[in-house]
Amino acid sequence: MKKHTMKKLESRGVRIADLVPILYELQKSYIPNLTEHQCEESLSAVLNKRDIQHIILTGIALDELAEKGMLEEPLLSILRKDDGLYGIDEILALGIGTLYGTIGSTNFGYLDKVKPGIIKKLDTTPDNVNTFLDDLVCGLVAAAASRMAHRNRDQKSE
Amino acid sequence: MKKHTMKKLESRGVRIADLVPILYELQKSYIPNLTEHQCEESLSAVLNKRDIQHIILTGIALDELAEKGMLEEPLLSILRKDDGLYGIDEILALGIGTLYGTIGSTNFGYLDKVKPGIIKKLDTTPDNVNTFLDDLVCGLVAAAASRMAHRNRDQKSE
Amino acid sequence: MKKHTMKKLESRGVRIADLVPILYELQKSYIPNLTEHQCEESLSAVLNKRDIQHIILTGIALDELAEKGMLEEPLLSILRKDDGLYGIDEILALGIGTLYGTIGSTNFGYLDKVKPGIIKKLDTTPDNVNTFLDDLVCGLVAAAASRMAHRNRDQKSE
Amino acid sequence: MKKHTMKKLESRGVRIADLVPILYELQKSYIPNLTEHQCEESLSAVLNKRDIQHIILTGIALDELAEKGMLEEPLLSILRKDDGLYGIDEILALGIGTLYGTIGSTNFGYLDKVKPGIIKKLDTTPDNVNTFLDDLVCGLVAAAASRMAHRNRDQKSE
Repeated sequence: MKKHTMKKLESRGVRIADLVPILYELQKSYIPNLTEHQCEESLSAVLNKRDIQHIILTGIALDELAEKGMLEEPLLSILRKDDGLYGIDEILALGIGTLYGTIGSTNFGYLDKVKPGIIKKLDTTPDNVNTFLDDLVCGLVAAAASRMAHRNRDQKSE
Repeated sequence: MKKHTMKKLESRGVRIADLVPILYELQKSYIPNLTEHQCEESLSAVLNKRDIQHIILTGIALDELAEKGMLEEPLLSILRKDDGLYGIDEILALGIGTLYGTIGSTNFGYLDKVKPGIIKKLDTTPDNVNTFLDDLVCGLVAAAASRMAHRNRDQKSE
Repeated sequence: MKKHTMKKLESRGVRIADLVPILYELQKSYIPNLTEHQCEESLSAVLNKRDIQHIILTGIALDELAEKGMLEEPLLSILRKDDGLYGIDEILALGIGTLYGTIGSTNFGYLDKVKPGIIKKLDTTPDNVNTFLDDLVCGLVAAAASRMAHRNRDQKSE
Repeated sequence: MKKHTMKKLESRGVRIADLVPILYELQKSYIPNLTEHQCEESLSAVLNKRDIQHIILTGIALDELAEKGMLEEPLLSILRKDDGLYGIDEILALGIGTLYGTIGSTNFGYLDKVKPGIIKKLDTTPDNVNTFLDDLVCGLVAAAASRMAHRNRDQKSE
């Protein structure tokens, strides 16, 4: 299912390679000698978790259904205009972001507000509904960051 | 949107009146002289919250789309068989159950495990997909219970 | 720190061996040929997580400080009488119970309500303040159950 | 208990007046004609919630106990150096920040990362342990922001 999840992300315009620089920026001041390869490895590992695969597939399904007009009102309009008071995208993304510990919530919220790189692009594509996708991606990067932080400490204390 | 949410719940087989006895059972030993009318009032009040309306409409939409075969695989099969490792229904329902404070998590989990009354029925209808609905209803009752517990204390301390 | 966390739990009256039968009861109908040894192994693995160690040590510290009268009012009285509207114990325990996925929330809530075995005993000791401890233990068992459920599926699909 | 919670916050160096400009900055682009008075009113309303009072009092108690050296090791050192992998402060603060809906998680994470105004000051006082306090304050402002966002919509749709 991991392969399927990555394909689905790619079909919506998100490749791991797009997320590497965002994760690198986020963690470079905390982890000395951080490499892009380590970032890629952590993002890939996070996508092994069944819960994270489920959340991503569910969120993208809702985006796609809204895009195709296959949801009923008022949900359809809420998703299409990415209503700021609709919080289900944040609920799901926070579910990803905190699976490696609650410290992920800080990075999730920061990314969701600042929207660096690809995240901004997803949030402003005129033809696609990415109400869930942009938050999911923030959650994914936040989870990978938590995982790296924990691993880095474990190595030091070995 | 509250009226719409209640209609949607009814169209899926859930009326407030079905939830009243579950809430009553849950709270009667904590709140002296509890009436069914108070239970009904609390369930209705909980449905005023925009977040709760959003969660319910989103969860039911996913159930209905799975029922109609309008989701892609593997999500379709996961929802149709109510896969025990799919946790998005719990994420959403917990989002309802804790909006009136975290004490709601205990009642949510208990109801979701024991499945009293209508909840059991929803979980075992052969023709409908109620993967989300049975959890959402547990979350709703749990939220109403938390609200009552807080109100009961407030009155006593006035 | 794992050893320290286990010692701390023991000093408050909780040994892994006390939790094994609770976890076994919870999972035996889902996992064929489940052994007590598997339960013990899962509980031990869950205690490897730094987040879980932190939560347990923090919760027990609050119990002990309340016991010794070293907290200020009104917090002291709230913890001493295990006020039902104080939800911080549930917040922390849910933080444990969902670290292996949100499906843990159902088992957490169920255990926290039904209080089987040692959990009941912790909740009713007259001389100790166990406001946090009984919930933490529910969270621990719930996390171990989620971990087992995910592992069991992974093995089948290998 | 609200009065007590506000006094406690003040004794740790946080007045509502310090939080008003942070909330104002956060919301001014979303709510036309926003006034500082509205911000103050929302922060005050959020402090009426029993759950939020409990969380704040518990978090500050842990800070104060760490400051006085009244916690055991290793918890004492973890809190004193505000260990980045200790996530209990985020768990509690997120408990505040999402009580008015999950949209609060975005603002919580953003504030916790950027640390504007008083929040930065709290995070860098050399003599005080504010491991919990700075996160709690972020949660408080995030909750007040969610409350304002929901109210603003409600008024428009009346």
